[in-house]
Amino acid sequence: MINRRTVAELEALFNSSLNKQSFSGYPKELYDPFNYILQLTGKRIRPIMLLMACELFGKAAEEAISQAIAIELFHNFTLIHDDIMDRAPLRRGHSTVHQKYTETSALLSGDAMLVYAYRYLVNVNSSQLALVISLFNECAIKVCEGQQMDMNFESAQVIKAEEYLRMIKLKTATLLASSLKLGAIIGNALLADADHLYNFGLELGIAFQLRDDWLDSFGETQKVGKQKGGDIIQNKKTFLFVESLNIADEHTRQSLLQLYSEQQRNSEEKIKAVLSIFYDLNIEKTTEKKMQNHFEAALQHLQFVNIGDNEKKYLNGLAHDLIRRDK
Amino acid sequence: MINRRTVAELEALFNSSLNKQSFSGYPKELYDPFNYILQLTGKRIRPIMLLMACELFGKAAEEAISQAIAIELFHNFTLIHDDIMDRAPLRRGHSTVHQKYTETSALLSGDAMLVYAYRYLVNVNSSQLALVISLFNECAIKVCEGQQMDMNFESAQVIKAEEYLRMIKLKTATLLASSLKLGAIIGNALLADADHLYNFGLELGIAFQLRDDWLDSFGETQKVGKQKGGDIIQNKKTFLFVESLNIADEHTRQSLLQLYSEQQRNSEEKIKAVLSIFYDLNIEKTTEKKMQNHFEAALQHLQFVNIGDNEKKYLNGLAHDLIRRDK
Repeated sequence: MINRRTVAELEALFNSSLNKQSFSGYPKELYDPFNYILQLTGKRIRPIMLLMACELFGKAAEEAISQAIAIELFHNFTLIHDDIMDRAPLRRGHSTVHQKYTETSALLSGDAMLVYAYRYLVNVNSSQLALVISLFNECAIKVCEGQQMDMNFESAQVIKAEEYLRMIKLKTATLLASSLKLGAIIGNALLADADHLYNFGLELGIAFQLRDDWLDSFGETQKVGKQKGGDIIQNKKTFLFVESLNIADEHTRQSLLQLYSEQQRNSEEKIKAVLSIFYDLNIEKTTEKKMQNHFEAALQHLQFVNIGDNEKKYLNGLAHDLIRRDK
Repeated sequence: MINRRTVAELEALFNSSLNKQSFSGYPKELYDPFNYILQLTGKRIRPIMLLMACELFGKAAEEAISQAIAIELFHNFTLIHDDIMDRAPLRRGHSTVHQKYTETSALLSGDAMLVYAYRYLVNVNSSQLALVISLFNECAIKVCEGQQMDMNFESAQVIKAEEYLRMIKLKTATLLASSLKLGAIIGNALLADADHLYNFGLELGIAFQLRDDWLDSFGETQKVGKQKGGDIIQNKKTFLFVESLNIADEHTRQSLLQLYSEQQRNSEEKIKAVLSIFYDLNIEKTTEKKMQNHFEAALQHLQFVNIGDNEKKYLNGLAHDLIRRDK
């Protein structure tokens, strides 16, 4: 058993490896966006989880670095294309790729980034290649399906809670789950263990997204690091909004729909009005409960993974940190 | 040696195999564009060449069907995304995908189609998997680079002939070359033979694109099947236009630039004026000569492929058909 590294150590390892990669070529319009978006360092949750999963089964994280980069490239490809579809001007407080460059450049760089993800992905033992690619393919298709569902929600009149959960499962949770499974495979885990870890990641990913939705309305502003109610201002159809519409009486439903149809209304006033509806409908608690259920389901799956108790405690702690985070 | 099938037979085999595939799933907005664009049957040149290359080395084309579908899916993914970038309303006389559905759906379906291409691609012997994927990855990146060059040309003041040729090599010829090499690999060809076939395809692809540019201005209208001068009306920067600007005197250069800056001018008149400049500059002959050079380079590479003389004659004939086509 090798020494298990901390999240901070794995993050440092990943970032220094990523920084050594050269994303340059001709024409530069295709490659500049790579370097731009990868610089806007996100949380690197997926590659870190992948590296950690590899170490859990006794292999050095270095063995899985190429696949960790593949996952981060894939994630950034989805961000670039999603931002085009959402016509979003900002990402993490900076101009989105299509805003900073052109829409053409963003579309094409995204395509090239997806191909680059495959390039890094296949840098693996030939005995693991087929499994690794097929896992990645199925994940990528699910993420596209999830994004299409999300796009369809924009014009949907009614969205059931299960539909919303299916969407975030496909769009968000699958990638976390696949990252963990990928790391486990490269760490030479048994397939059964890799699958349990996948399901742990899937449930954790759903809980994570519900927490994200929850934080926007009920988190403490300073810690969240973004304006409280940002989702509300953008009329984003979060679990809070979707579930409110499903359980509200007709009068409240109409008020909420009215609030979400307004673009220019005084933001403070709008957030206050929406939050008041959320509180009246007890949405804070409903969402927390839902999140808790998925979180517990994740921990159940963790029980079945054939690793030592210390390792389980460690993963359990990480999962708690991810969910109990304030931003 | 198995019986070599004709192009028509390979086309029938490919189309019937493609028709048996099911591109359906949830949400349908993601999958409907697959079926729509694949129905607008193109010439299927790439998959047919791939199947043929496989048979040249003695393996049944059926062995390579999955990769032929992968190549056709990849080609259609590029068509969908290119049409978004070009804001093109029509493709082969029908609405483009983003026009018929939405831009979001087109972008996302294209992404999913690229992933599906990988899904079909990897359906191969594990001993060939790494080579097959790496060939496909390098091809896909080159196609993105070529498309970015093409996009850059839109706003470029001067485009050298070599730059134009580099662009069509990346954007068009690489995929034909890679299709041939892929088929050869699956047919168990020696790598040296597969590489010669690649270079044959690369030169042939360049000749093919030059022929395409040539036909638009100098082909017989009825046979071309599209309006003569369609490229001229769309101000498309073909080899004819690029080379004209490079060799014309300043007065002619300005006239040509002026003609290409007009959107609404009487089409007949515009085509006549541009063709007259092309004729004066002897562009018809220059382009033919350039095309001929690449065509002969292709045949040179064919000489080095270690297959029987009958096979070489057959491929030679196919290459002639592709270049001497009237549309």
